[in-house]
Parts: sequence; C-alpha cells; structure tokens
Amino acid sequence: MDNYSKIDSYLDKNLDQSIEELSKLAAQPSVAAQNLGLVECAELVAQMLTLRGFSVDITPTEGAPVVFAERKGRVDKTLLFYNHYDVQPAEPLELWDSPPFEPTLRDGKLYARGVSDDKAHITSRLFAIDALLDDSGELPCNIKFIIEGEEEVSSIHLHNYVINNREKLSADGCIWEFGSVDHREVPMQYLGLRGICYVELSVETASIDVHSGIGGSIFPNAAWRLTWALSTLKGPDERIRIPGHYDNVLPPSQRDKALMEALPEVAEEYKSRYGVEKFLHDIDGGLPLRLAEVFEPTCTICGITSGYQGPGSKTVLPARASAKVDFRLVPNQTPEQVLKNLRLHLDAEGFSDVQITYLGGEAPARTDPDDPFVDLVVKTAEPVYGVPMQKVPLIGGSGPNYVFVHHLNVPVATAGIGYPGTRAHAPNENIRLDLYLKGAKHIARILKEFSISTS
Amino acid sequence: MDNYSKIDSYLDKNLDQSIEELSKLAAQPSVAAQNLGLVECAELVAQMLTLRGFSVDITPTEGAPVVFAERKGRVDKTLLFYNHYDVQPAEPLELWDSPPFEPTLRDGKLYARGVSDDKAHITSRLFAIDALLDDSGELPCNIKFIIEGEEEVSSIHLHNYVINNREKLSADGCIWEFGSVDHREVPMQYLGLRGICYVELSVETASIDVHSGIGGSIFPNAAWRLTWALSTLKGPDERIRIPGHYDNVLPPSQRDKALMEALPEVAEEYKSRYGVEKFLHDIDGGLPLRLAEVFEPTCTICGITSGYQGPGSKTVLPARASAKVDFRLVPNQTPEQVLKNLRLHLDAEGFSDVQITYLGGEAPARTDPDDPFVDLVVKTAEPVYGVPMQKVPLIGGSGPNYVFVHHLNVPVATAGIGYPGTRAHAPNENIRLDLYLKGAKHIARILKEFSISTS
Repeated sequence: MDNYSKIDSYLDKNLDQSIEELSKLAAQPSVAAQNLGLVECAELVAQMLTLRGFSVDITPTEGAPVVFAERKGRVDKTLLFYNHYDVQPAEPLELWDSPPFEPTLRDGKLYARGVSDDKAHITSRLFAIDALLDDSGELPCNIKFIIEGEEEVSSIHLHNYVINNREKLSADGCIWEFGSVDHREVPMQYLGLRGICYVELSVETASIDVHSGIGGSIFPNAAWRLTWALSTLKGPDERIRIPGHYDNVLPPSQRDKALMEALPEVAEEYKSRYGVEKFLHDIDGGLPLRLAEVFEPTCTICGITSGYQGPGSKTVLPARASAKVDFRLVPNQTPEQVLKNLRLHLDAEGFSDVQITYLGGEAPARTDPDDPFVDLVVKTAEPVYGVPMQKVPLIGGSGPNYVFVHHLNVPVATAGIGYPGTRAHAPNENIRLDLYLKGAKHIARILKEFSISTS
Repeated sequence: MDNYSKIDSYLDKNLDQSIEELSKLAAQPSVAAQNLGLVECAELVAQMLTLRGFSVDITPTEGAPVVFAERKGRVDKTLLFYNHYDVQPAEPLELWDSPPFEPTLRDGKLYARGVSDDKAHITSRLFAIDALLDDSGELPCNIKFIIEGEEEVSSIHLHNYVINNREKLSADGCIWEFGSVDHREVPMQYLGLRGICYVELSVETASIDVHSGIGGSIFPNAAWRLTWALSTLKGPDERIRIPGHYDNVLPPSQRDKALMEALPEVAEEYKSRYGVEKFLHDIDGGLPLRLAEVFEPTCTICGITSGYQGPGSKTVLPARASAKVDFRLVPNQTPEQVLKNLRLHLDAEGFSDVQITYLGGEAPARTDPDDPFVDLVVKTAEPVYGVPMQKVPLIGGSGPNYVFVHHLNVPVATAGIGYPGTRAHAPNENIRLDLYLKGAKHIARILKEFSISTS
C-alpha cells in the first residue's frame, strides 16, 4: 500500500472543486416522499457519471428512476457502488440554520438536506475516481454504480430492478451507500442489516362513532379490538407470541459475539440521549445490551390512532382504530414468513376482524465478517484514518442489502464519510470536510488494492 | 285537569312572540368549551327572568356564572327547573344550512346551535309561566330556576354550587333540562342517568422518540406499556377486570325490567344508524339489549394516541402514549371508588408507570319510577300529547342529577320539547314548533296540578 502520494495530493488539492460539485447536487431537491425533483436529480447524477466516461442509463420505474453506470478498467474485476440520490423531507424548515437546499459551509462543515445521506457519498466516490484517472489515465478495475431514488421510502422498486438486471449488476464486491466513524473517530465496518416487516393493523367496527353513553356495553369498540389484538402479539415479558416467529432465528456465532464484545460501551450514551432510566430485561449495558440491540427480533408499536385525541374529554366509542407495527428481523427471518404467521395468529386468537396492510419489508442480510473483500476494505482504512477499522457484524437498522447479498451473491462492505453529528434525517444535516477527504482517499485505496488482490 | 282552555289559547296565540324571544337567546353565542359569550348569555337569561317578576342573582364561578331565580306563588310548594344556557361548539360550520347563530325558521322548525339543547327548554318554561300569569295574575306555586353555563363541559362547578346553596335551592320537585318524544311521537319520562368516571391514562418511557432500529429490543415502548395496561382493564369477554368494580352494582329490579320490557325495539334502528352487524354477547335485541345498554357498567376506550399516525411508515419507538377511558356507572357505583380501584389495580398489575388523570365524573342517580311527582308529570302529558307518557327507569347518558337527587333530596322528572331529529350537538340543530307548543302546555299543566296535588 504505497504509491498513494500522487493520488492523495490530487485529492488534497481538488477538495474545493469536489465540494462545489457536491453543492450543486445538494442544491437539487430530491425528496422521494414528496415526489420532488427526482427526475432532475437522476439526470444530474447521470451527467456527473457521463463526465467521467461512464456509460449511463436511466431506467424509469413506477416511482423514481434508477441510474446505472459502468466503465471498464485495467483489470477485469468489478466493484459495484450502491447509492441513492433521494433525500428525506427537509421539514421542519424553521429548525434549519441555513436553507436546506442552499448548501452552506460553516466551520469546516457543509450543511444541506441529503448532504450526508447520501449525496456526499456519491460525489466522494466520483472524487476518488477523478484521482485514479489523474494518476494513471484509466480505472484500476471495472466500476459499476447503481443509484436509486427511493431509498428513503423503503426502496420500493429496487428489489425487482436488481432481480431483473442480475447480469448487468454482477460484481465481485459491493460498497454500500454509507459508512462512518464513531464518537472515538474510529472508522466502522458495518457488515449486516436487520430485516423489517412493517404493517398497519386496522379494525372497523361501525360506520360512524357511537356515543359512549349508548354503546359502551352493547357495541363492539374498534379501540378495544385493536388493544386486545396487539396484546396477543407481545406481552410484558417482551417475548413475541406469534407461533413460529423464532423458528428461523440464527443466534449470534462466537465470532459475532467476539466482534460485539470489542465494540465500545453504549449504555450511558443511550440513557442520556433518550432520557431513559433503564433498559429492558434489567440489562445494564456491556455485551448483553449490544447483543440484545441487534440480535433479538423485535415487535415495535410505532404508532396507534383511534377516536378522540384532543384536549379534555369526549364521550365517543370509536368506529375505527389502527396501529403501525414494525418487526425487525434477524437472520434468517423473512418478511413473508412474518406476514403469514401474523395472519394465522390473529385468526387463531379470534381477531380475523383485524386487517393487516403490508407497508414494506426487507429480509435481513449479512456479509461474512471474514470475507477477503471485507478485510481489504478494513485494511485500506487504517493508513487513511490512522486507527484500525472496527468490524460490526450486524446493526439494528434495515436496508435493501438482501437482494445484493443473496441475489447478486456479492460481498457488501461499508466505507463512507459519516460521523455521529451528521444529523441524517434531521435539520442541519451536515458533513465534515476532513472526513469527506478521508472517505475519498479510502475509496481510492479500495479500488486500487481491489484490482490487484487475488480474491 | 280542566280549565286549560284559556291557558292553551294564550299559548296558541303567542307562540310567535315566544319563538322571537327564543331566537334572541339562540342568537347569543354561549359556547362553554370556547369560553364564548357566557357572561352575556347569563345576563340575557337573567333579564328574561326579571321581566317575569323573578328575583334573580348571577353567581360567578371559576368558569361560567350560575343564574338563580325565584318567584313566590299562591301555594307554598316549590318547583325547581334545572337548565343550562351554554351550548356545544357550532363547528363544523360548513355543514350548517343556515348560520348557527342566526336562528332560521324553515318548514315549521327553528334551526340554530343550542336551540334544542337547551335554550328552547328555557324559553318554553318561561312561555308557560307567561300563560299562567295571564290566566290568574299569579304563579300557582313557588318557582325556582337554576341555570348553569357549563353543562356541555361536565358541569364542572355545579356540584359545589348546589352543595353550598342547599337551602336556597330546596324544592318539592325538579324538572330536568331535557325531555322528548320518541320516533313514535310518544313522550318519554327519563328517570335516571348513569354516572361517569372519565380518565386519561398516560405513559412516558423516554424523553424523545427512539429509532425503532435501535430501540426495539432494549428500550421500553410507551405504546406497548399502554396497550398492556389497557388490556388488563377489560378482556374480549367484556368483563371489567378491576377488582371490586362490580361490588356496589344494583341489578335492575322487577319493576325496572317491566318498564324496560314495555319500551320499543331498538335493534334494527341501531344497526342501520351505526352500521354495525351484531351486538356484543350475541344479543339480538329485545329486553336483553335494552337492559345491557343501560344497566351494565362500561369501560370504553374513547381514544388512543401514540407515535406516528400519518400515512405510510415511520420507524419510531414512541416515548409517549395516552388513552381516554370512559367508565359509565350504574347505581350504586361512584367515580371516587372507580378511580381508587383503578389505581390499585394498575399498581398490582405492574403498571405504576401509567399515570391516571381524572377528567371528570358524576355519580349515577335515579328517581323512583313510582314517585307521586313523577306520576303527576306523566299524567299531565297525556291530554297534551294524546298518548300516555312512557317511563324509562334509566338511560345510558350521564349528567349532574346526582347532586339534585341525593343532596337536595328532590324527585327529578323530565318534560321537554326534543324529538329524534333534533340534532343536538350536531350541525342543523333544530326544534319543531308543534312540540315547542306542546312542551309549554305540558309545563303549564305540571305547575298548576303540582300546586293542588297532595304529594
């Protein structure tokens, strides 16, 4: 791992220019939830890729278009970048210190909606490519990009796109859309995402609300039906009661536990950030907390709505009630299995009146922590960050990695420019320019070492 | 019961004038929930009473003022009228065919907010008094009015006013604020109201919502805590599980059952009005349905709110959750007992984290269906309505009658001008002028017969 002085020098000198390109991208609103600027942003991303000599196609879907780009390199090995050009809604606007779609530099940070999630990841990869082209006039290996526009709305159409374009997307390694250092400035290697099955449960017991003075003892009450149905899903012992729910759960391996053991303590940070006094199951912290956080399947009520919710009292018996419920899945659970078992369970418990609406899902997926591609990404981080990258076998969040890991059969690793204060999804989202530069240097090393690795 | 030709003729001739007075009263907004026009309306009501030679005082409370009025009559027996000058909010305004505070005559009906509930009841009583004064120059008996301004917000300050003015309010009989004919045009005599204990249950598990990808298996979830706590209050068998809840329940007597048996069938009307297919406990209708409707204590969830309630999915673990719960009480339950048992029960079930906020309550109260005063009110209805008045021992709703029945020790009966299409609390609230006239004729008869009765 030598010969990076020219590449690093290029990156050091041209940072401003790359930030300018990033600013142009971040100034283009592209809010998937509001169908705002998606086509324009896809075209802007496509232009940036075309400029680097990539052949690009934009495929419309029923939602946002998918951008695919490809350029051959010196060695016939292929690295695939998965990214997304869509961003979260900018609201609440009044909490931004500068307008969300007017990228603004302050104190070594660039502020804008979507700058971290995920636009700086896109341009930092392009910046690394610029440095490699400057270095040798060619790419060290084949590079493919798949950049979708619906990541913030559950990647609704990505699954089918990947399944239908398996050949086109084939690769030997994949760099995921995000990556970050933690609060110690240690770069983290996230190797798996939990799955998710998100449903809405709803009940309707009458066509209109009934006065509670009339109905309380003779009419069915939608709020009660929902309460009782929910209480059959999980009890105060936190055990999910749906038969078969745990059947396919793989417990963490010894290797997983060792990696989790090495991670820093989170208990005090969680307590102070969220204002909680204690964790479930009387867990204090340490390894048990970290294992429970990601290796336990969950059933979370995300919201409930029924009847009168204003101030004071209103004597009404609700005709309708609904709840949003989020199941986080661990290997090898699947959303299809959860949905099927949930319906069977509700019917068996006498709640066939409770409707299930499937609002989205992903299967969980992990890359082997000891995959040679992972080790390459980890190894190339150290000279850039000055400390070893730390492997995390699974994180609590979800994303569309299943289709990459299990349909493209490609190892997926993370490398990126995030940090704990990046405020993704929140007002004043920002990136640190020093980490942007490090991210680009890391990507340049990944590409170059990948081209000469034997794996 | 003769000698009513002069009185009836006066009422027939002066209906327009009384409707004009009612229109003036209904044109004065007096919305307790919005603290709108209450003092002005109290003064208007006081003026109307002063005009009839009543001595009137207006007592401020921490809420709306209470109007009290008194005038002596020929015989030293006292009849007390309980009424209220406040009205429900007029919203939604767009559903009114004429503005809610511009009383409008159409097809023999007067439309305005509060015209039926309760302003026409006030002026129809005054109209009857006018006819009696025209007839003999004096009142047949002493008459007192207590007219509050907070009936639509649970009569918050009435209880203490009555307790503190027991002597002033003492009477031999009380006519309640409402009364009506049913869909057969049969006048109904409502002899009891259920009690109520209305609470809000709330839980807070963190200072801010947590991402469900992080928190699902390690953080307490307010929505789950609330769901589990609620499910301990009542199960799908509809039996309330709070220990002691049924201890003081008096089952209906044989006399109650006989009166309920005589009432018309409601099953088909309820099914079509509310769009329900079946009632609880597989009851089809008939006496079992009517008994269950009013003689069973209830525990009704009126509303639940927690977390994300918008369209689509949001992966959040709610820090807060709350539910409004309405217990309807039958004799001899009390709201104090319910509150105390509820706290003990939640603590015993492990839910001391669930806060209880008391939003209001009334104890149930009934007048003996065979009280001579009730029989007088019933008997005097028949010559006016042409059919016998029908006794209803208890209705499902609640109101502040307990303090009259059990602190003033006065029998309470109903007589009024309502009908099934009166749309109280809804847009296009209205009264029928023919029933307004009948109501006044009935009140005139009650007052005159009461003065000469031996009870």
